[in-house]
Amino acid sequence: MPPGRGGTVQALLEEVTVTMTGAEAAATEGHDAAALLERTRSTVNPQLRTGVESLPASMRRIAMYHFGWEQADGTPAAGQAGKAIRPALVLAATQAFGGDPRRAVRAAAAVELAHNFTLLHDDVIDEDQTRRNRPTAWKVFGVPDAIVAGDAMCALALRLLAEDSHPAAARASARLAACVIELCAGQQADCEFERRGPREVSLEECLTMAEAKTGALLGCACALGALYAGAGEEEVAAMDAFGREAGLAFQLIDDLIGIWGDPSHTGKPAGADLAAHKKSLPVVAALTSGTEAAAELAGLYAGPLDGDAVRRAADAVDRAGGRDWAQVQAADRMGLAVHHLSCAVPDLGAAGDLLALAEFVTRRTR
Amino acid sequence: MPPGRGGTVQALLEEVTVTMTGAEAAATEGHDAAALLERTRSTVNPQLRTGVESLPASMRRIAMYHFGWEQADGTPAAGQAGKAIRPALVLAATQAFGGDPRRAVRAAAAVELAHNFTLLHDDVIDEDQTRRNRPTAWKVFGVPDAIVAGDAMCALALRLLAEDSHPAAARASARLAACVIELCAGQQADCEFERRGPREVSLEECLTMAEAKTGALLGCACALGALYAGAGEEEVAAMDAFGREAGLAFQLIDDLIGIWGDPSHTGKPAGADLAAHKKSLPVVAALTSGTEAAAELAGLYAGPLDGDAVRRAADAVDRAGGRDWAQVQAADRMGLAVHHLSCAVPDLGAAGDLLALAEFVTRRTR
Repeated sequence: MPPGRGGTVQALLEEVTVTMTGAEAAATEGHDAAALLERTRSTVNPQLRTGVESLPASMRRIAMYHFGWEQADGTPAAGQAGKAIRPALVLAATQAFGGDPRRAVRAAAAVELAHNFTLLHDDVIDEDQTRRNRPTAWKVFGVPDAIVAGDAMCALALRLLAEDSHPAAARASARLAACVIELCAGQQADCEFERRGPREVSLEECLTMAEAKTGALLGCACALGALYAGAGEEEVAAMDAFGREAGLAFQLIDDLIGIWGDPSHTGKPAGADLAAHKKSLPVVAALTSGTEAAAELAGLYAGPLDGDAVRRAADAVDRAGGRDWAQVQAADRMGLAVHHLSCAVPDLGAAGDLLALAEFVTRRTR
Repeated sequence: MPPGRGGTVQALLEEVTVTMTGAEAAATEGHDAAALLERTRSTVNPQLRTGVESLPASMRRIAMYHFGWEQADGTPAAGQAGKAIRPALVLAATQAFGGDPRRAVRAAAAVELAHNFTLLHDDVIDEDQTRRNRPTAWKVFGVPDAIVAGDAMCALALRLLAEDSHPAAARASARLAACVIELCAGQQADCEFERRGPREVSLEECLTMAEAKTGALLGCACALGALYAGAGEEEVAAMDAFGREAGLAFQLIDDLIGIWGDPSHTGKPAGADLAAHKKSLPVVAALTSGTEAAAELAGLYAGPLDGDAVRRAADAVDRAGGRDWAQVQAADRMGLAVHHLSCAVPDLGAAGDLLALAEFVTRRTR
């Protein structure tokens, strides 16, 4: 049986991580991503919360709800404000370049705010009903309030950096603003692709979209961390590239999980992305493969996709080579990520946290 | 006849401008606001356009359309990107403090981008169909694309400042980001008030909303101009207050025009704001007056407002004192604006352009 094919999600993930060399794997030893994320949350959340609490009341309550700190009625909630992968990348990157992560907390909070601004608006645009197992903000507070709360959160992210006295703050702010623009372009392309016919999206367009929508902010997080440690332009660019490639690997794995993920892990029905006619990366790879299975998949995507059709569509993606392609791509992207990282931080020991985080995001089973 | 009552819009405006002393009026002589705005557009538009053209194609086309530079199909249009009042305030404020307005062009463009970001989102939220005599961006490109284009425009505004090497850029960026948050709060309150019953909005809430929605950005424009001339904190604060008060005066006049404006000047049917049940400042002043006419107006606002009911509602606002209140308030606000300006710039000769712009915005008949 070809590696991964017909296997479990775990098998897929193992295949991806074998691209790490022994030295790289050793570097991640002792770097427990879960503990790192936990530490990041306890470091960054106070700053994040102070920022959110500085918002005018009407938008603060939406942000507090979105972050899981309050119920819709304003009573406290013990929820979790997301995994904090992006702020963890900021702090780990600062550390990797010998900087003091405590001085980069504001930048870490800014990146997390920018991420959450996109979630608020994407949920409105995609009409998503739930986020982190709760009704989305627009479902609770209405579309107009969710839009302005997102706007305010984006402005707050950039305000935190503008008010930071750190010498790298202005460059960080310019990078984050440019990244927000790229995130918007990614979201726009994602929506626009959904409106096109099954065979009207090229694989290259789809990869560009995924890089803009997912890779750009992971790259920006790493770049900001490096900037805050006083790293040079080349190192900052390499860190951006590391984050982008890791982000693409993450998206590829996420897309595989969206088709073959275990519902007991994902919390979604099997093949949820297929049922939603999503033009995810493995699907577009399959649709553009020129195979017989591609034609079959295009036919299935032209109609409604219920239980049996979802199974046949998943099979068609597999036979058209979409599954293998995504696995190989994910592995390649992780390889590229590690390459960029080793250019930026030749001492892989210093980059252990970053490697652990990159491995963590490509292992996730949301 | 009490001043202004039953008079023309022109009479209203004259009443407002009589608050200028002879010296202040003399200071605006030779300062032609229309020519100033024309000069501002020719100075700032290239920077504005370069910024917009730097956006990814999918959002650039929406921004180009919104600014009137392109038709919906991407062919060039000779339209005008708004009156440029806010950028003109930036440049005039820089000049008033002896700064070089040419160095503040980027800040002027940033303020105009922030303004236009709010227009894009407000049109989505308010479901407005036309803007500057053309279909609104969301009508042409759809709600999702208008949301992300607005997001990108906001980020672009802050990026322009973050990339500016001027020593005041970081403080300007922090101020503009804080202002965007206030604009969002203003828009949120405006929407929220529309959902409340006719007597459930206090005059104080309504004034706070108008200051956030209209005053804040005019204040920010003036403050940024002062910052770019190296003005001190107190002067910057006074300039912010000048812009805020002028903005409130503008809003009061705009609200009066929304009820009693001449349709041949406004391009809208008489009493358009009443027909839309808008809780504008004169209306809320009337509703909260405790008079018999207030009760009558509340009754009218509880039902649909057609031609005859609009006339009766306008009359009720007038009899309840809403019209007089708004006129007196507008005059008071202009007086306050001039006071703040004279604190910041004791030589009124140097402030001539700012006075001319303040007078212009309260004279407009949109």
